[in-house]
This record gives sequence, structure tokens and C-alpha cells, in this order.
Amino acid sequence: MNNTKAYAAVSATAPLAAATIARREPTPHDVQIEILFCGVCHSDLHTVRDEWSSVMPTVYPCVPGHEIVGRVTRVGSAVTSHKPGDMVGVGCLVDSDHICPSCQAHDEQFCPEATFAYNSPDKHQTAAVTYGGYSESIVVDERFVLRIPKNLDPAGVAPLLCAGITTYSPIRRWGDISGKKVGVVGLGGLGHMGVKFTKAFGAKVVVFTTSPGKKDDALHLGADEVIISTDARQMKQHAGTFDYILNTVSADHDINAYIQMLGLDGNITLVGIPEKPLPVAAFALLFGRRSLSGSLIGGIRETQEMLDFCGEKNITADVEIIPIQQVNEAYERLLKSDVKYRFSIDMASLKK
Amino acid sequence: MNNTKAYAAVSATAPLAAATIARREPTPHDVQIEILFCGVCHSDLHTVRDEWSSVMPTVYPCVPGHEIVGRVTRVGSAVTSHKPGDMVGVGCLVDSDHICPSCQAHDEQFCPEATFAYNSPDKHQTAAVTYGGYSESIVVDERFVLRIPKNLDPAGVAPLLCAGITTYSPIRRWGDISGKKVGVVGLGGLGHMGVKFTKAFGAKVVVFTTSPGKKDDALHLGADEVIISTDARQMKQHAGTFDYILNTVSADHDINAYIQMLGLDGNITLVGIPEKPLPVAAFALLFGRRSLSGSLIGGIRETQEMLDFCGEKNITADVEIIPIQQVNEAYERLLKSDVKYRFSIDMASLKK
Repeated sequence: MNNTKAYAAVSATAPLAAATIARREPTPHDVQIEILFCGVCHSDLHTVRDEWSSVMPTVYPCVPGHEIVGRVTRVGSAVTSHKPGDMVGVGCLVDSDHICPSCQAHDEQFCPEATFAYNSPDKHQTAAVTYGGYSESIVVDERFVLRIPKNLDPAGVAPLLCAGITTYSPIRRWGDISGKKVGVVGLGGLGHMGVKFTKAFGAKVVVFTTSPGKKDDALHLGADEVIISTDARQMKQHAGTFDYILNTVSADHDINAYIQMLGLDGNITLVGIPEKPLPVAAFALLFGRRSLSGSLIGGIRETQEMLDFCGEKNITADVEIIPIQQVNEAYERLLKSDVKYRFSIDMASLKK
Repeated sequence: MNNTKAYAAVSATAPLAAATIARREPTPHDVQIEILFCGVCHSDLHTVRDEWSSVMPTVYPCVPGHEIVGRVTRVGSAVTSHKPGDMVGVGCLVDSDHICPSCQAHDEQFCPEATFAYNSPDKHQTAAVTYGGYSESIVVDERFVLRIPKNLDPAGVAPLLCAGITTYSPIRRWGDISGKKVGVVGLGGLGHMGVKFTKAFGAKVVVFTTSPGKKDDALHLGADEVIISTDARQMKQHAGTFDYILNTVSADHDINAYIQMLGLDGNITLVGIPEKPLPVAAFALLFGRRSLSGSLIGGIRETQEMLDFCGEKNITADVEIIPIQQVNEAYERLLKSDVKYRFSIDMASLKK
């Protein structure tokens, strides 16, 4: 076991603070990674504060972080796909059973035995639960370690491991959006990646936002048009015209207003998780034969495909780099949507 | 104009009663039909009582009925597809604009200018709105008149024109359900057709019902298994195992309980219209990448395909034949689900 510096919360009400955790010695199939950057995802905050207690109660101490980019420092004797010095990434998934139908279909995120980067039972029993990327280093099974294209900036790559794949996967699965009218609801960490991907795939991209102040930002990110969703006139004008809408909002909102924007056989996919159930009007679904779906990150193969696509198109997240010492303040700013568009923690700060 | 006997409601609180209405003289493209049977759909009751006033207010007098089977008595000079003596059907749709994208795609039900069998602005201006099948006869554009297979009993065919196509269309659109585990929620007019169709397409059919008393009926109709949806143990045992669920319930119900029944990429399609919005938990959609859709009857081409399929497989609705004089009582029984599984009005009773 190796002692490793990290930032941890010891209870739902405690701030994150410096801590020392144990990491396992790499097994023959493991890759040891020095973490360079870790993105700050809203899920980190939900978990640290035990806000998903009914579904996934938090075990403390909790070390969050699942948008991890780093450099390989050691590999186990059987590892063939990575070598020391490689730039690599780790996302939400760090293990699965490899035998269930979901794993066979390369959808490891739905494996009943999936191990997540943090707050997930640790099969190696180094601790009760896994510890995430707010840490100097991590040890991960080679099958869950992603290759990072050399041309991309590591700080901006980190959020691709969650925000990137979360938005890329549903867009790709919907089908060919080239030339289609596609909406992106919300312009935060997920939404700004949604704009970049839908644009890269050739859609006519329309951003829905409640904040008129975000209009220029949306256009700058590549949106063709911006609809202020509180403006009934604008909403009515676009009703029934969208082929597909990616809904990244996790605050409570009127989902029917967006369902009404869809044309015949249109689909709206949720990738955020609002706390309360969304009241869905059946009429809105029946008339237009519309559908409402959910999508959860993506499998490992699809995540690598997304990273390779980003390398090819030179896509990264827009980030504000912070030292780990500012992470509690960053959480408060996250709650006020005061970030463009993702915090990326420079892990060199942890060594200080 | 021809005076025609009918049953009409003059207000939201009035019972249906004998009335005389005008039907237009057939134009060159029209088919005049003597109505033999008309099914009683829950939509008839909703419309008669103005229960959808916020979406589609009812214009009185109201003559409901859109599950119409009859015999051609006259055809216009340009009619080529039907001739006097033919057994034909008319469903929810009696006209559309024929030029919009929905019409081009044979989805006339989504045409912005679609004319429905009743309570729809009458383009021929015979009256303010169209009058439906609770009537001796009807005059309909030949393109909206369906051929009825000769081997089928007309009383049992009538409900196919709405309950039949409403359940057939989403099942066919989902894809090949042969060998799949498919659920049907509710065992009323729509649900019992859902069981017949899913069975005919080779699925393993499981009926969800709140009434243990309906178990034998469901098995008799062709279900392979019945789940009492109020039994938490049974529900838990089947969680995550369904490929597709057809939800025919229009009463308020816990949709999340059924979403949880779906496996990876599973879909549940609503064909009933609950009055209140359904609270949908995002977690249930995200984990399993599930989807919730709506479907509304079907286009004319698809309705003919359904009727031909029923002819081939000898499928009709299970009906209780009533005289028109009992229609108000039938509505009360409908509200108590006291019918197996559809009332079919014998229109000969109107001549008395």
C-alpha cells in the first residue's frame, strides 16, 4: 500500500480538506497514474454532501473526482496497452465484471458489478469504498485507462472523461444529426460540451438558456441560435421544429416546454438528474409521437472513441484552472453557475 | 344534405339522446356508408363531457364515435377504391391536407389540418364540427375509408379502427418483438388488443394489472404471465427484464414503477392519456438508458395494414354488443371498467 495525498470530506457537512489515503500496489493488470488535472463535476458535490443518499448513500471519508488526467508512472507485469510516461485518462468507471450482457455490449456503465471512481465498494479492499481523483495518484485496471491524444491540453481534457462522454454518447446514439435542428438545454459543464459536439457533427445548434447574458457565450461556442426559454414568444415560434434535444439541466424545470419543441418522432434526452420527478404531460408525448430518454455517461470503448474524435477535431472543455485549496469555494461558485464552464484542479497544488 | 338519425349530447352534462343531423351529399370523391357497428372509445366519453377542454374544447351538439364499420351505399363519380356493398371501416381520421410532411410520410394523424371523425372543424361546412359514428350513416373521403377483411365479424372489427391501430402502431414501430419480453399495462379496450397483437407477433407477453381477478382473463387472451402490479415482490422480481412495455392506462398511475421494469435501452410507450402529468424520475431513465414515448393512433396506410394483418390472423376485439339506447349506461360501466373489453353499438337499434 502506498500513502497518497488527497482532499477528502469526512461528513456531509464538512468541507473538503487535506488527507492521506492508501492506494494499492499495482497488480499485474494495474496502471499507476500520477494525476495532473481533475475536473470538478456536479456529481462530486452531490456525493460529498450525501445529496443522493436515497439512491447511493455516501461512505466517508469521501474523495471525489472522476475526470482524471495524468501520466503513467508504473505498470503491472501483464499490462500491454499502456507504458510509463503515457498521458492517460480515467473517468467514472474503474472496473466491471466483464461477463454480463452490458459488459459484452461495451456498456460497462450498466454492469451490475460496475465499480465507479469514488464511493463505490472497493473490490481490492484497500478501503471500504473507492477514492477518486482529488489525489496525487491513482491505481486502475488497465482496461479502464484511456489514451489521451497528444495534441490536446490536459487541463481541458479532464472534463471530457465525464462531461464529454455524457454528452457525446446520447448524441451519437440518436443517429446522424448532420443538418438536423438540434437543441441543447442549459449552458454549463455538460451543455457547453453538448454545443461543441453537436456543432462538430454538423447540426444546426440552438441553445436554450434562461440567461440572456449567456447568448454571446453560446454563439461564441458555436451555437447557430439562442432561445431565451423564459420568452414565450420565442418558444412558441420554434415549437414542433426540433429533431433532437439534449437536456443537460439538473435543476427543476418544465420538461413539457421542451417536449413541445420537438417535431414528429423527436427525442429529448436527459443527462442531468433533477432531484424531484419531472411532471410529464402525456399529450405532449402522444401528439408528435415524441420520446423522452435518459443517458448515463458511456462505455469504455465509446469513451476512447470520443477522446480520439476530440483529438481529431481539437475539442477540449473550456476550463478555469484552480488549485485544490480553492475547491470548497469552487463548489459554492458551481451552485451559482459561476464558472465557464468547468473547474479543472491543477494537482501540482496538492504537493505544496 | 341528408337528414340522418344519430345520438348526440347537447352539453357536457346532458346524456346522449336521439337527434337528427345533416350529412353532406357525396362529392365525386366521397363514399356514403350505412353504419352497422360503432365501438365505444373512452375518448368518446371524454369529448362528450368536455373533459379535454383545455386542449380540444367540445362543440355541441356532439355526436361521438370513431370506430365505425359499415356497408357502402353510394360512391361519388371519381371513387375508384370502393363500391356499393363493400364492407368498410372509418376510424379517427376523415381528412387531412395531403401535402404536409406528416401526410407525405403517411402519418396523417399528425397533419396540422387533420380532420377527425368528430368534434373537428368540418371543411365541408355541413355543420360547425364533424359528427361521428353514433349515427345511421356517414359520408367520408374515399382516401379515409378502409377495406375490412371478409372473414372478420363486423361487431368485433369496429374497435380495431381506434383501439386496434392505437396498439398495433407503437408495437410495430418499436421493431421486431418476436421472442422479446413485452409488457402490457392495463387490460381494458386498448390493453386486450395489445395482448392479442404482441402475442401474434411472437413476444413473451406479460400483463400488468392491479386486479387479481383479471389474471385468468389475461391468460385466456394469450398472455404468458400476469404480474399484479400492487405486489412489490412480483414487481421487484421482474425489474429490469422487459424489452418493451405498452402502457394503455389512462388513470393516474406510478409510471416510474413500470420504467424500472425495463432492461437496457428498454422503451415504454404511452397510448392512454392520463389527465394529470406523470411524475418521471430522471434516475429511472438514466440508469438503463430507458425511454418513455407516446404514440397516437396511426396513419391510414398503417391502419389498412393492421386490418389486413387481423384478417390474416383472425384477430378482432372482444366486444359486448349493445343497442344505442344503452350507451349512457355503457359510459357509466366504462368508468368502472365493467366491460370485456369494448362496447360495440349495433346501429340497427337506431332505426327503431
